[in-house]
Amino acid sequence: MHFLDLASADAARARQQQLTKPPGSLGKLEDLAIWFAARLGSGTPGRLKPAIVIFAADHGVASEGVSAYPAEVTSQMVLNFLAGGAAINVLAREGQATLAVVDVGVATDYLQPVIDPGATTRFFRMPVRAGTGNLRREAAMSRDECRKAWHIGAAAARQGQERGKNLLIGGEMGIANTTAAAALICALTGADPAEIVGLGTGIDAVAREHKVSVVRDALARAREAGAQNPMDWLAEVGGLEIAALAGFYSEAAALGVPVLLDGFISTAAALVAVRHDSSVGDWLLASHASQELGHRHCLSELGLSPLLDFNLRLGEASGAALVLPLLQTALALHRDMATFAEAGVAGPAA
Amino acid sequence: MHFLDLASADAARARQQQLTKPPGSLGKLEDLAIWFAARLGSGTPGRLKPAIVIFAADHGVASEGVSAYPAEVTSQMVLNFLAGGAAINVLAREGQATLAVVDVGVATDYLQPVIDPGATTRFFRMPVRAGTGNLRREAAMSRDECRKAWHIGAAAARQGQERGKNLLIGGEMGIANTTAAAALICALTGADPAEIVGLGTGIDAVAREHKVSVVRDALARAREAGAQNPMDWLAEVGGLEIAALAGFYSEAAALGVPVLLDGFISTAAALVAVRHDSSVGDWLLASHASQELGHRHCLSELGLSPLLDFNLRLGEASGAALVLPLLQTALALHRDMATFAEAGVAGPAA
Repeated sequence: MHFLDLASADAARARQQQLTKPPGSLGKLEDLAIWFAARLGSGTPGRLKPAIVIFAADHGVASEGVSAYPAEVTSQMVLNFLAGGAAINVLAREGQATLAVVDVGVATDYLQPVIDPGATTRFFRMPVRAGTGNLRREAAMSRDECRKAWHIGAAAARQGQERGKNLLIGGEMGIANTTAAAALICALTGADPAEIVGLGTGIDAVAREHKVSVVRDALARAREAGAQNPMDWLAEVGGLEIAALAGFYSEAAALGVPVLLDGFISTAAALVAVRHDSSVGDWLLASHASQELGHRHCLSELGLSPLLDFNLRLGEASGAALVLPLLQTALALHRDMATFAEAGVAGPAA
Repeated sequence: MHFLDLASADAARARQQQLTKPPGSLGKLEDLAIWFAARLGSGTPGRLKPAIVIFAADHGVASEGVSAYPAEVTSQMVLNFLAGGAAINVLAREGQATLAVVDVGVATDYLQPVIDPGATTRFFRMPVRAGTGNLRREAAMSRDECRKAWHIGAAAARQGQERGKNLLIGGEMGIANTTAAAALICALTGADPAEIVGLGTGIDAVAREHKVSVVRDALARAREAGAQNPMDWLAEVGGLEIAALAGFYSEAAALGVPVLLDGFISTAAALVAVRHDSSVGDWLLASHASQELGHRHCLSELGLSPLLDFNLRLGEASGAALVLPLLQTALALHRDMATFAEAGVAGPAA
């Protein structure tokens, strides 16, 4: 477990009072500079070096008709990530972040050879199994498979740190994964599925009612099967990419590397990690409030406030990547602005 | 008057439906791409070329004790802009925008020679007069002075367009200008000063009560003096930099160049411009919701929704500059993402 550097936070707080602006007038940008100071161990942190890792896997529950898209879109979108055509490719470029994709359980075959001529997106094929079981009828995965996926995520976080990254962003791709994430949030917070289950990639109200009942059935089945702690629930009603994300966040926190969360799935995985070990919470920063119904509830269970509300609901780490320039700007202001003394500007009248 | 290009907006809307994401899943980023398409006259607009112009001037009403800072901070901060030490210098760099400062009425002498070795910030000294009159006791400026300041702003917008800029951002510096902006908003919307007057750079509750009564007195005086139309009010209770901003926004709209608004003062100036000519409103984009009390009211009178809520209250165009990367990212996604057909990804199930 890694402790926050409160002396650096104090130094950053003191510096903010001396910069040529009314104290507090940069609002959340000031808070962000202080937040990073405490976690990067410096009163004036340098530029962030962010890494984005997308975990991809399929979900047996897709066969219940809970998604607007067919299951093969998971593998098709992985190919799109590798070819550079997805939203996250553009966002990673704009946010100057590296991008890697880890297959932890994609079920369908890749229909084209995986070619990345520019090598801008790294790809790792480490499927734990070919998609999860249908969580309505059976455990999504065994405890052992769940641990394997978790450890793949943890290894990705360690690799990020070893490569000098000081901000880790996890994303996901997995048709039907809002169903699993909703089930996890309900299981870990006691919320009613009707208040958490949303429209995902774009189902209608009737399909949503069906999705709510699928989640209810899954929760009842898993409770019956003896699910109690967060790891039990993760295996029973989670997903392989969600387990990998939870491991990724846990390990980042253990290593003392801050984490920027994305949307609904990402935040559900963070909830698992925090309920498993509450010290993980200190290292999490929320990027945005998703359009997906249960996201705000999950953020508030984690005590997090989103920076942006852009009505996004894409996943892929897209919302997190979008706010990267805001974080870089907060730190640039903190580093580069003149102090009142340096600039010869008068302070507030006494 | 310039018309919106609705065919380009339609082309952009159609393209958004074909990109490899669930339709609507990029939320406000999709709206932004379509907004710019209609204004830049292209279904897939290129990178924005933004210009920031800060108008600086002093306010006679500062002698009423309405600000936390002494009046000479206006000129000191202009020097800070030119030396590169202010927030807007850092923000312009991060947002890849050019920066110019126009003195339209700074009252105190510049205590250091104005030197900008890197020439990153251009400076224009065109003071219409040495600060406004005290708007509580007399007209802030004559109608003729007001027109002069307006035309300086309009000329700056024309210059921006001639230099190939396709997004214009106006900012301001002027100790006590939240008092003038609040008076203008009350005059043009009928709002009560108690609901609009805020803490500015950081006065306390008692000083705010005093500021409210200063605004009440100013409004009564100006009404007595016969103020009726927006230009009357601008001269009676406005400011030289506010008049320049209003002219800047009006001319940008007339030239068909979109405008990104900043905070309280900037939005008050936009309100004057729109009440003077309602077609200006089509060209305005709101960047953020300021901490300053009356800002949301003013935005909603203009029918605008802010993109960001970061609790800023600095002015200087800081909030507008902060959102520039979000706008660039919205357009980059729109241009560079693959379509479903290009990527071989299946659409929603029928």
